[in-house]
Amino acid sequence: MERITIIGLGLIGGSLGLALKQAKLSNIEIVGHDKEPTASSKARKRGAIDKTEWSILRSVDKASMVIIATPVLTIKEVFKQIAEVLPPGAIVTDTGSTKTQVMEWAEELLPPSVSFIGGHPMAGKESSGIDAASAEIFQGCTYCLIPSANAAPKAVQTVVGLADTVGAKPFFVDPVEHDSLVAAVSHLPIILSSSLVAATTASPGWREMSRLAATGFRDITRLASGDPIMNRDICLTNRDGLVRWIDEYIVELKRYRALVAEGGQELEKEFIRVWEARAKWLNQAKIPREAEGAPVVEIPKASEQMGNLLFGEKLARRGEEIMKNIEKREQDKP
Amino acid sequence: MERITIIGLGLIGGSLGLALKQAKLSNIEIVGHDKEPTASSKARKRGAIDKTEWSILRSVDKASMVIIATPVLTIKEVFKQIAEVLPPGAIVTDTGSTKTQVMEWAEELLPPSVSFIGGHPMAGKESSGIDAASAEIFQGCTYCLIPSANAAPKAVQTVVGLADTVGAKPFFVDPVEHDSLVAAVSHLPIILSSSLVAATTASPGWREMSRLAATGFRDITRLASGDPIMNRDICLTNRDGLVRWIDEYIVELKRYRALVAEGGQELEKEFIRVWEARAKWLNQAKIPREAEGAPVVEIPKASEQMGNLLFGEKLARRGEEIMKNIEKREQDKP
Repeated sequence: MERITIIGLGLIGGSLGLALKQAKLSNIEIVGHDKEPTASSKARKRGAIDKTEWSILRSVDKASMVIIATPVLTIKEVFKQIAEVLPPGAIVTDTGSTKTQVMEWAEELLPPSVSFIGGHPMAGKESSGIDAASAEIFQGCTYCLIPSANAAPKAVQTVVGLADTVGAKPFFVDPVEHDSLVAAVSHLPIILSSSLVAATTASPGWREMSRLAATGFRDITRLASGDPIMNRDICLTNRDGLVRWIDEYIVELKRYRALVAEGGQELEKEFIRVWEARAKWLNQAKIPREAEGAPVVEIPKASEQMGNLLFGEKLARRGEEIMKNIEKREQDKP
Repeated sequence: MERITIIGLGLIGGSLGLALKQAKLSNIEIVGHDKEPTASSKARKRGAIDKTEWSILRSVDKASMVIIATPVLTIKEVFKQIAEVLPPGAIVTDTGSTKTQVMEWAEELLPPSVSFIGGHPMAGKESSGIDAASAEIFQGCTYCLIPSANAAPKAVQTVVGLADTVGAKPFFVDPVEHDSLVAAVSHLPIILSSSLVAATTASPGWREMSRLAATGFRDITRLASGDPIMNRDICLTNRDGLVRWIDEYIVELKRYRALVAEGGQELEKEFIRVWEARAKWLNQAKIPREAEGAPVVEIPKASEQMGNLLFGEKLARRGEEIMKNIEKREQDKP
């Protein structure tokens, strides 16, 4: 029996548990820990974990894999707490929204005897917490993976298997590049949603406005309903990238302001252009993303690690197959 | 047999037809006209209209009510085209996203023998066009109504009945106030969505970014997929209000930029504040909005128009009941 420990049983941690349980891997036991006992017991009742463990130290006891699914700043605290008691050879991964600082903390705080692979499934929902968890949220989503320098190849392969098992597409990326990309498509949107809610609800006209606000307003402000602590941690750990994107965005918004003020043909061209750009993106996003490009950082050769797999055979076998495909695409490159 | 003519068979015109047909009003025939013959024939096939009429002039022949559901600038052209042939006593309404200019055009171009009541159902969808039409999109939505100065009370009552029949909540509002309110909660969001798509897709990193863009990005950019002509017309007819709101928004966004750059406790408080504000709005939006306040402009007394109703009895009777309630609330005011 191999043990997977999930620390942090919110939307992502709970959903990972549900998706892993749904895959019916043999010989896997999922232990869950959350600082809120209510979240732990709900996660067990919903079948996201096999058992709860109130002590974070005991929760990682004998664990083959530890998944940390807390807000980003908490990951550092968890590293500090569990570093001493992690079983040698354990695989540690996280689901934090920013990666540069997480990789630095892992390097600084975790023992060299464990393999850390940073992770970030690009999945989310309007609601947060264990009540919103669902096995389905990872279906087809990109799952960013960032192996630390000393991660064992078989550990990387196992985390690839984890991503695939929950229905996601593993995507290797450099941590600095990751943070720069998500600053634009994930963190800037949080700021835009939140500041729109702030600007409108603080307006003297909000009482009347709120009656006319409809589905468009609901959708564009959805990200303002994200977990406030998670959002704060994202801003604090991706500060420079985010500030740079806010500045770029203000330049673009001023260009739009000028187009509106001029009121000419350019405005129509602009709306057609963004209509097309988004349609193209939506269309491409349906294509399995794994097939669209090669991994950004070098990953271990699948052939180096055929045997000696850690996990329940299904998880590891799928990881192996996927890495063979990635490797093959690399070789096929002109 | 009373005739309702719908000019413009896109998302809103098509959906109004479907919702009216679903209400199974007796003695009502719905005639549809669209400059695109494909839209007309699709609307008939989908059962949104009883028959199509290729000539816009013939389409309003013998019509008791004409609903104009085109982009805003086209409404002016339609007014010009049909003004001469509108049957005396006809009710004319529209569904345009801005109202000040539409009311001015109606005053200027329509004959005094017809009753114009400006309308704006606060309903929408990601997709546009007749294919996306659905009888359900008006359920519970606020339906703004703006009677022109010379609109007959019974005509106002009938349009109230129309809004109610399709499942919407009639809401009387002054045109200038309407445009100012929707500038904030409807038109500014279109600009924010579109400029975000413009800023990201024009970035050199877009190819990689697009793989990480997920459901949050999809939702915040939804409005960039609105009909480009409709969006252009909105900007052209609500220019001052929209420019003012873009300016207010940039101030707010710069405040957020400072909070991110500082990275302190204020950021957390801010995220909590907008989380709460949006939760409160979502919660209130579920309450039937009709009950939340009194109409903004004076409306005709229901008692003045008990008899002599134009339309299929259901439409008019519901309009009458609703206006009695509105009138009663006015009287009950301290």
